[in-house]
Amino acid sequence: MVRKGILIVVSGFSGAGKGTLMKKLVQTYDNYALSISMTTRPPREGEVDGREYFFVSRERFEEAIDRDGFVEHACYLDNYYGTPVEYVERELASGKDVVLEIEIQGAMKVKERFPSALLLFVMPPNIPELERRLIGRGTESKDNIEKRLKRAREEAEGIEQYEYIVVNDDLEQCVRQLHSIVEAAHAAPFRNRSLIQKMREELDSCYIHRIQI
Amino acid sequence: MVRKGILIVVSGFSGAGKGTLMKKLVQTYDNYALSISMTTRPPREGEVDGREYFFVSRERFEEAIDRDGFVEHACYLDNYYGTPVEYVERELASGKDVVLEIEIQGAMKVKERFPSALLLFVMPPNIPELERRLIGRGTESKDNIEKRLKRAREEAEGIEQYEYIVVNDDLEQCVRQLHSIVEAAHAAPFRNRSLIQKMREELDSCYIHRIQI
Repeated sequence: MVRKGILIVVSGFSGAGKGTLMKKLVQTYDNYALSISMTTRPPREGEVDGREYFFVSRERFEEAIDRDGFVEHACYLDNYYGTPVEYVERELASGKDVVLEIEIQGAMKVKERFPSALLLFVMPPNIPELERRLIGRGTESKDNIEKRLKRAREEAEGIEQYEYIVVNDDLEQCVRQLHSIVEAAHAAPFRNRSLIQKMREELDSCYIHRIQI
Repeated sequence: MVRKGILIVVSGFSGAGKGTLMKKLVQTYDNYALSISMTTRPPREGEVDGREYFFVSRERFEEAIDRDGFVEHACYLDNYYGTPVEYVERELASGKDVVLEIEIQGAMKVKERFPSALLLFVMPPNIPELERRLIGRGTESKDNIEKRLKRAREEAEGIEQYEYIVVNDDLEQCVRQLHSIVEAAHAAPFRNRSLIQKMREELDSCYIHRIQI
């Protein structure tokens, strides 16, 4: 019997290192699949359809919206982005734990639609370190960094909505902790209903028919 | 800052191997302490006060009951057994995760008094294997085994009250899984309130005073 996968929703402040963490998690353990989003934005150089994104036309995206085909979706700078239900469901059924990196509003929508989704929040070790990381990228204007920190302050209000938080101080250790959390989640009774049921039936039958010694 | 320990309550069918598992867990990782019960029963040969049990007089036990000094306690074959709050609290404060092996009614009482206790249920891989283990002990009469299986059937009704179940098939693997569950539990937001608070304050101050690039 294949263990059904868990939909893992990961949020966290910009600069907390979610992307690196998720990549390392998927590389280190073989039970994970990164969710692939569908988008109407054109592919950038080097991007491959079905790897970075599923690139589709606006018509196809809107069709998918109409048939409730997204775990969540949003419009950003005039382009659609969404997580296709079908892809996620297929991976989960095959036993993969599917990792979905998404901001807090999206995370809440996913939890509403998939109550058994596991919500994780990635934090930097501290805020001065977060600032250093954002500045260190060298690609962000001062304005942009301020915007991201302001956004982080807003997002911080929602941390208690998440089931687990992990502090991304040491990458390897943080990946191990993420994996522990997912392994633990697999041990929740509601994810093991058939096992519990089987145990009860076996206990019934051994007790009814008496045991043979 | 010392990470505060978690009170871990472990239940499971008789013969599921809880004792062996707990011993192995404590040996393998250094963050665990086994809870030590207080009892009015006299020590057996080889038993050491403060190791197997805290051996006390009936008077001292009843005094402790009166001042609400037990996490839980029960009377069995005319002797008291109880888990001293003081010992548990001291270990938790020192950062130890305290493991308390206890049956289901006791577990529910503990959860009532310590809502943040972590409730784990240990299952055998299947019931025929449970029967084999009980018979294999060579110390149990047929009647006793039947009683234990009947008791298991009753206990099985309560499994959903536990937060996690683990199947004790392979000892090493099961110990690793238990440890994963405890590590995950440490990452719950309600166990990291001061960290979240600190993060929010840092975000407030960096946003208020503007950042320096």
